[in-house]
Amino acid sequence: MKISARNRLKGRIVEVRKGATTAHVRLEVGGTVVTASITNEAVDELGLKAGQEAYAIVKASDVMIGLDG
Amino acid sequence: MKISARNRLKGRIVEVRKGATTAHVRLEVGGTVVTASITNEAVDELGLKAGQEAYAIVKASDVMIGLDG
Amino acid sequence: MKISARNRLKGRIVEVRKGATTAHVRLEVGGTVVTASITNEAVDELGLKAGQEAYAIVKASDVMIGLDG
Amino acid sequence: MKISARNRLKGRIVEVRKGATTAHVRLEVGGTVVTASITNEAVDELGLKAGQEAYAIVKASDVMIGLDG
Amino acid sequence: MKISARNRLKGRIVEVRKGATTAHVRLEVGGTVVTASITNEAVDELGLKAGQEAYAIVKASDVMIGLDG
Amino acid sequence: MKISARNRLKGRIVEVRKGATTAHVRLEVGGTVVTASITNEAVDELGLKAGQEAYAIVKASDVMIGLDG
Repeated sequence: MKISARNRLKGRIVEVRKGATTAHVRLEVGGTVVTASITNEAVDELGLKAGQEAYAIVKASDVMIGLDG
Repeated sequence: MKISARNRLKGRIVEVRKGATTAHVRLEVGGTVVTASITNEAVDELGLKAGQEAYAIVKASDVMIGLDG
Repeated sequence: MKISARNRLKGRIVEVRKGATTAHVRLEVGGTVVTASITNEAVDELGLKAGQEAYAIVKASDVMIGLDG
Repeated sequence: MKISARNRLKGRIVEVRKGATTAHVRLEVGGTVVTASITNEAVDELGLKAGQEAYAIVKASDVMIGLDG
Repeated sequence: MKISARNRLKGRIVEVRKGATTAHVRLEVGGTVVTASITNEAVDELGLKAGQEAYAIVKASDVMIGLDG
Repeated sequence: MKISARNRLKGRIVEVRKGATTAHVRLEVGGTVVTASITNEAVDELGLKAGQEAYAIVKASDVMIGLDG
């Protein structure tokens, strides 16, 4: 599937931690760790586990800009 | 201000394009361009312009995971 | 690409309206019209136009529940 | 209350699963299951349970567009 | 309609500015101005204009926490 | 850090409840309680606890408008 979301950051999954309903998936993307909060069901359906190549995908309207200082 | 958002990707602004009410700010982050859709007012208040160091900031609940194939 | 977003509603695009930076894409999904607010660039990259089959995709954490009354 | 969110999909709740803090509510909407990730408190306050008619409500800026292929 | 979104802040609309597709609505809520970025269509459908009592409504998963310093 | 998010509501934390992965933080803001659903890790990193002054921070594109009636 092609998707309209503008932002796709390629990385490698370093941790998958499932909670009661919500899982946290951490990817290393160019030396930075990105955390995704997704459903346990998505983790199971995609078979996500540490070591896999994956993308962090973010819609442009969910990105803010920060400046130091 | 310290903020709870988990994801802060450091980069450099490569384009600021203001629309009628909504602006698109593009940052280069480790060789990938990240697009943020924010208000024109935020662009003005922060004085955002191409060449600045800045962060793309994303709440963990706004990050999805994608797999190739 | 396979994506973690839980909700994929199949429909047909009935209108694409581009603004200065933000486009509104309307899909008919089972008799209901769904509106997506996405970037003009996404419209161009995907070549979206009325008549196409497409999916409305929504992350579970962006869905609210409403009750009548 | 009338609300600005553009997307209201009528369906029937097929499952309510509460976690430690976050609940998953599943609605059948025209043959497709839609998952909403909401707080346990919202489930309690609205008295949500399987069998009820309800709406999945989504702000237009939270809808992405996908294409096959 | 009753809605699962946890946060409803009562205020008064102080400005409605429509763009090409996206409008900015500003409410004064207890001495603070809250900005909502919504579709022009929502503004028209609800008949929003300065002076009206209205609510800023936010899903709990879209609220971040900030600390000074 | 300065951030593009338009909405910063000052208040006092009245409750921090951690779940398996997701925490709910409640702030009293001018007599109204605002609920934020954030990661447990953010709670730990910021050291959030009841009694602290804090801000509820919301991106303008995540604010909806509601009207009575």
